Amino acid sequence: MDFNVQRINQEQTHNADGYQEQHNFSEQDQHGLYKAIFNRRDVRGQFLPKAIPKQILSRILYAAHHAPSVGFMQPWDFIIIQSPEVKNKIHQDFTLAHQEAQAMFDNDKQSKYKNLKLEGIIESPINVCITCDRERTGKTVIGRTHMKEMDLYSSVCAVQNFWLAARTEGVGVGWVSILHHDALRKTLSLPDNIVPIAYLCLGYVSHFKEKPELETANWLPRRPIDELVSFDAWGKSASNSDEKSLIAQLQSDEKFPHSFTDKK
Amino acid sequence: MDFNVQRINQEQTHNADGYQEQHNFSEQDQHGLYKAIFNRRDVRGQFLPKAIPKQILSRILYAAHHAPSVGFMQPWDFIIIQSPEVKNKIHQDFTLAHQEAQAMFDNDKQSKYKNLKLEGIIESPINVCITCDRERTGKTVIGRTHMKEMDLYSSVCAVQNFWLAARTEGVGVGWVSILHHDALRKTLSLPDNIVPIAYLCLGYVSHFKEKPELETANWLPRRPIDELVSFDAWGKSASNSDEKSLIAQLQSDEKFPHSFTDKK
Repeated sequence: MDFNVQRINQEQTHNADGYQEQHNFSEQDQHGLYKAIFNRRDVRGQFLPKAIPKQILSRILYAAHHAPSVGFMQPWDFIIIQSPEVKNKIHQDFTLAHQEAQAMFDNDKQSKYKNLKLEGIIESPINVCITCDRERTGKTVIGRTHMKEMDLYSSVCAVQNFWLAARTEGVGVGWVSILHHDALRKTLSLPDNIVPIAYLCLGYVSHFKEKPELETANWLPRRPIDELVSFDAWGKSASNSDEKSLIAQLQSDEKFPHSFTDKK
Repeated sequence: MDFNVQRINQEQTHNADGYQEQHNFSEQDQHGLYKAIFNRRDVRGQFLPKAIPKQILSRILYAAHHAPSVGFMQPWDFIIIQSPEVKNKIHQDFTLAHQEAQAMFDNDKQSKYKNLKLEGIIESPINVCITCDRERTGKTVIGRTHMKEMDLYSSVCAVQNFWLAARTEGVGVGWVSILHHDALRKTLSLPDNIVPIAYLCLGYVSHFKEKPELETANWLPRRPIDELVSFDAWGKSASNSDEKSLIAQLQSDEKFPHSFTDKK
């Protein structure tokens, strides 16, 4: 399964100026990236007990490690959880938080909420907690002098890389966020300067769903993208032909990503 | 340039159970995803004035729109900035914040800091601000009942999808974070419930650098990934053969991602 490594090593060469020689991606390479993005799902219920080979897990972790980070902080750590005791403890915390959450929804949504499966902590063979070390490279960080949240965002970018790499490997990922911060900190013995960013369930799956589960369950619809785009200031709609043609393009491309998710 | 659209439409079919039929990715598709991840760069200084076709910009925006989001909130909006007046105003704010930032570094790093180019606001043909609407789908959001920051993280995932899609299109992206929140809010007329997540500079580039610029400038080194991995709790090193073999695999794979960035 070292195909990527081999192929990429042969293909990717660099010139003397420190530039990437492969400036342009092939159509097939572009296709692979878009396919990963549109087929990634938040997996809760389809995990298989099959072990994930270390070669695959290594690639997924490297993908996360090559996320962007503010000031090249690389503030992330990866806690890999396979112990049944730790998983059970996390699951207990989820159960408590989930019960608290139920009570927060109005009556009509409450019964729907109860029927949703929202985690695969026990069934997934591996759980991974991705964290952010807020003090990793000292007090002053390039790019974080004015927006202090940038280190947290760097770790989130690592989560997204992790998730996309897993999808291309046929490995499902589910992000569990119905947990108390304090309980998670305690179970994983996190020091004060370490923020838990994402608690992820990881494993091979019987299938990936066509659409996000909350879309299929009619919890909320996919928003039309042209309503999310404005120009030069908040809420300012297209006012010249250039801007109007982008909106028209977005509208005509609507079937592009949906072709991954809509039933035909 | 509709190749992706066409190919993917033909290839991707769904079965009657609402599953994705293309469970496994081809080696070439995997390759495309990893290539995007390892070749993505934070671009500051190589922007070309060449316009980005609306077809390309549409694809990049759709990639962002298909990020994961807590409770399917899709809390992101995209403000596309081409007005020279708005860009100049943002650049003025950057200049002020950048001067403030310089004074925060120790003497030895200060001169190095001054020589780094940290933004391409004016030179890049398009700036894009990706935001988070904290009230998009009402007060109670599935998965955000206990971790209130999840909506912000969703918008960050959209940024990372945007960035990877841009790289596969040969389009450079630079994330500018040396800005005052309040000034950015004012310039873009953001309402109180809208948080600016990322201010991005976008454009074709003369070249992509082999390595992150802060790595090349010896600001900080790339961290060895095996030092970032622990097991079952913070700081707990590999204690059984399974865990030790993952660490060994990570160490032996070190050249895999570096082959994208190291000079040969």
